[in-house]
Amino acid sequence: MQPVITLTTDFGLRDSYVGVMKGVMLGICPTARFVDITHEIAPQDVTAASFVVRAAMPYFPPGTIHLVVVDPGVGTQRHPVALATPEARYVGPDNGVFGLVWRQAQARWQTSELRAVILQEARFWRQQVSATFHGRDIFAPVAAHLAAGVALDTLGPRLEKPVMLTMQEPTWHTLQHLGGQIIYIDHFGNAISNITAAHLGRIGPLPALQVSIGSLRLPLQHTYSSVGAGEALALIGSDGYLEIAVREGSASAVLGIETGTAIAVHKVDQG
Amino acid sequence: MQPVITLTTDFGLRDSYVGVMKGVMLGICPTARFVDITHEIAPQDVTAASFVVRAAMPYFPPGTIHLVVVDPGVGTQRHPVALATPEARYVGPDNGVFGLVWRQAQARWQTSELRAVILQEARFWRQQVSATFHGRDIFAPVAAHLAAGVALDTLGPRLEKPVMLTMQEPTWHTLQHLGGQIIYIDHFGNAISNITAAHLGRIGPLPALQVSIGSLRLPLQHTYSSVGAGEALALIGSDGYLEIAVREGSASAVLGIETGTAIAVHKVDQG
Amino acid sequence: MQPVITLTTDFGLRDSYVGVMKGVMLGICPTARFVDITHEIAPQDVTAASFVVRAAMPYFPPGTIHLVVVDPGVGTQRHPVALATPEARYVGPDNGVFGLVWRQAQARWQTSELRAVILQEARFWRQQVSATFHGRDIFAPVAAHLAAGVALDTLGPRLEKPVMLTMQEPTWHTLQHLGGQIIYIDHFGNAISNITAAHLGRIGPLPALQVSIGSLRLPLQHTYSSVGAGEALALIGSDGYLEIAVREGSASAVLGIETGTAIAVHKVDQG
Repeated sequence: MQPVITLTTDFGLRDSYVGVMKGVMLGICPTARFVDITHEIAPQDVTAASFVVRAAMPYFPPGTIHLVVVDPGVGTQRHPVALATPEARYVGPDNGVFGLVWRQAQARWQTSELRAVILQEARFWRQQVSATFHGRDIFAPVAAHLAAGVALDTLGPRLEKPVMLTMQEPTWHTLQHLGGQIIYIDHFGNAISNITAAHLGRIGPLPALQVSIGSLRLPLQHTYSSVGAGEALALIGSDGYLEIAVREGSASAVLGIETGTAIAVHKVDQG
Repeated sequence: MQPVITLTTDFGLRDSYVGVMKGVMLGICPTARFVDITHEIAPQDVTAASFVVRAAMPYFPPGTIHLVVVDPGVGTQRHPVALATPEARYVGPDNGVFGLVWRQAQARWQTSELRAVILQEARFWRQQVSATFHGRDIFAPVAAHLAAGVALDTLGPRLEKPVMLTMQEPTWHTLQHLGGQIIYIDHFGNAISNITAAHLGRIGPLPALQVSIGSLRLPLQHTYSSVGAGEALALIGSDGYLEIAVREGSASAVLGIETGTAIAVHKVDQG
Repeated sequence: MQPVITLTTDFGLRDSYVGVMKGVMLGICPTARFVDITHEIAPQDVTAASFVVRAAMPYFPPGTIHLVVVDPGVGTQRHPVALATPEARYVGPDNGVFGLVWRQAQARWQTSELRAVILQEARFWRQQVSATFHGRDIFAPVAAHLAAGVALDTLGPRLEKPVMLTMQEPTWHTLQHLGGQIIYIDHFGNAISNITAAHLGRIGPLPALQVSIGSLRLPLQHTYSSVGAGEALALIGSDGYLEIAVREGSASAVLGIETGTAIAVHKVDQG
């Protein structure tokens, strides 16, 4: 059995911080397998981290431990936490970084199937804990102890309510007019919104929908190659979210779309 | 036995896409070892990907599975494929990305030793296949099933001819004058051409050769330190290709060399 | 037993060079575990590499092999070396890259507990050795053979004195006035100096110290959140070095601090 630990941080890859966390974990659980999700979260961008963890989680084997260190409040009173659902475990700061996966878990599982604890048992930490690098001194050691078989409940007392993010939900202007916003721009420049396939299904059949962003009006397409090279399109991306793309180009650069840009979906009459 | 799977993509490292493919593979083959070749292929640059895979392949243990996802035609009729030679296996889109390794394999092995199949057996894919992320939904699962011991022939029907790239071969102007071009610029700014050590040997003894690029005329050197710091040199690089470098500097930046820049080799009289 | 090999290079992540070294090592020691420390050392910056290796080393399990390839002198007479202390092993060029860990080891261990050898036994290298990529052809194979159980002493003859770096030590202007410099800027823009917590303790009690950098005068703080967002602070970083930071910002960008910038510490009277 080789337990899997994923890593999501804002550390970048220039310094030794990520390697050091892995070194600490190998000292505690030599058989742990590491998978880097990303270390290029913008510094202290808790919202982006929560999006990335939610996007990655469904694709990992049950029991995978997701270690997330985007921690602007290191050294303050924010709690260090560990969470568990029947699918996955999470270790990191209680600052909203697990808000999206936790809300999803609450919708999917019984309350009795979910566990959240405050990391308080210092015997599972490094002996010396710095004031500025809890990733190395608390979170990584705890993740490795979990991987090595330590039970979640031994890590500290029960946490009642993990911190949630106030990520904006889309707004129903009418039953046939939904307003949302872009919440993530990926490496290709694809602009991903907070509107899901489930939302779209409630407005009407997909061929009857029109997507508006800035002055563009776009029908929903099935895949990038449904339009010509350099042309814009709207589609439901591979994680189930409405996104705006440009075939063989960057929607963000070509169309001037950023995180926060408004997007809307209407039902149109097909005469 | 820990089967090795390498990854080459144009996904970058900002998003969760690479981690997600590894999560999918660990669910199918928990013992697989991953080695990232690069995720920084320029978006949709099939030629660069084919160059990188050819450069990396010889250094991996026999049976290594090379997963390549540079896939501008995702969602179109391009085939998903798996290839096998006595040295290595390959999984990815049939768009030329395996053109260089396949041409090399055809030169080295009997036809009966090579296998190519179209990925058609959906039982080796994820249950739901998106239109935009076959890396996650088809290629990664198939690579993991191969790693777990599934035979190539069960993945789908025989493919007659994988798509080849029309990468420009050098041109013989005379028996003592060969023209080529720069096909890859590396991280250090070294400019690597499509002219090999074998080509050079056919022109004449190495000390009698002169390399021309732009207005520069350079003799062949043995290593970077054969010239002073900041000086340009020509040498046969560690993969056997003629390259232009600047000692402790970037040939690309200093000399203005790009992919496609012409390069030539002459035999000179040594009076 | 899965031996751990860390990698620190200036190769970047665009090319296949890092993956190729791992492929070579897996062919020799299939059970080796790799941890990337960083591949983003500035090209040929031996000093930065020596800093990063020293910073990472303490957090890895005993016996870990640290492979470091920052090698501007490849192809010259600089020696390829392997070093061993009771804590760790090192493989790379003898160009000062191990200067900091070796000085530390000499302070901590008996001479009889330290070993340094010149890599001279070609049977532990790749069969063909290029003039330009000893990382692939000498250092990676030797690291993998060490991981597979080969004894250090069989790799070549004893090396008397590994090359040391002349990294500037801080200067005592008076017993209560120490001058140093910034030696590393991290991904967050934190500026790390060559002044340690031990130095500071010799000047006086921490609350009585004042840190000067440019026109700024800063007291020592405990953690980033001791000041307001956007404000500068001085603190002892998680590795024990005096650093300058800006809360939720980049000290390097905001304050114009670079590698080499002067920093000083005074004892102040607290009337």
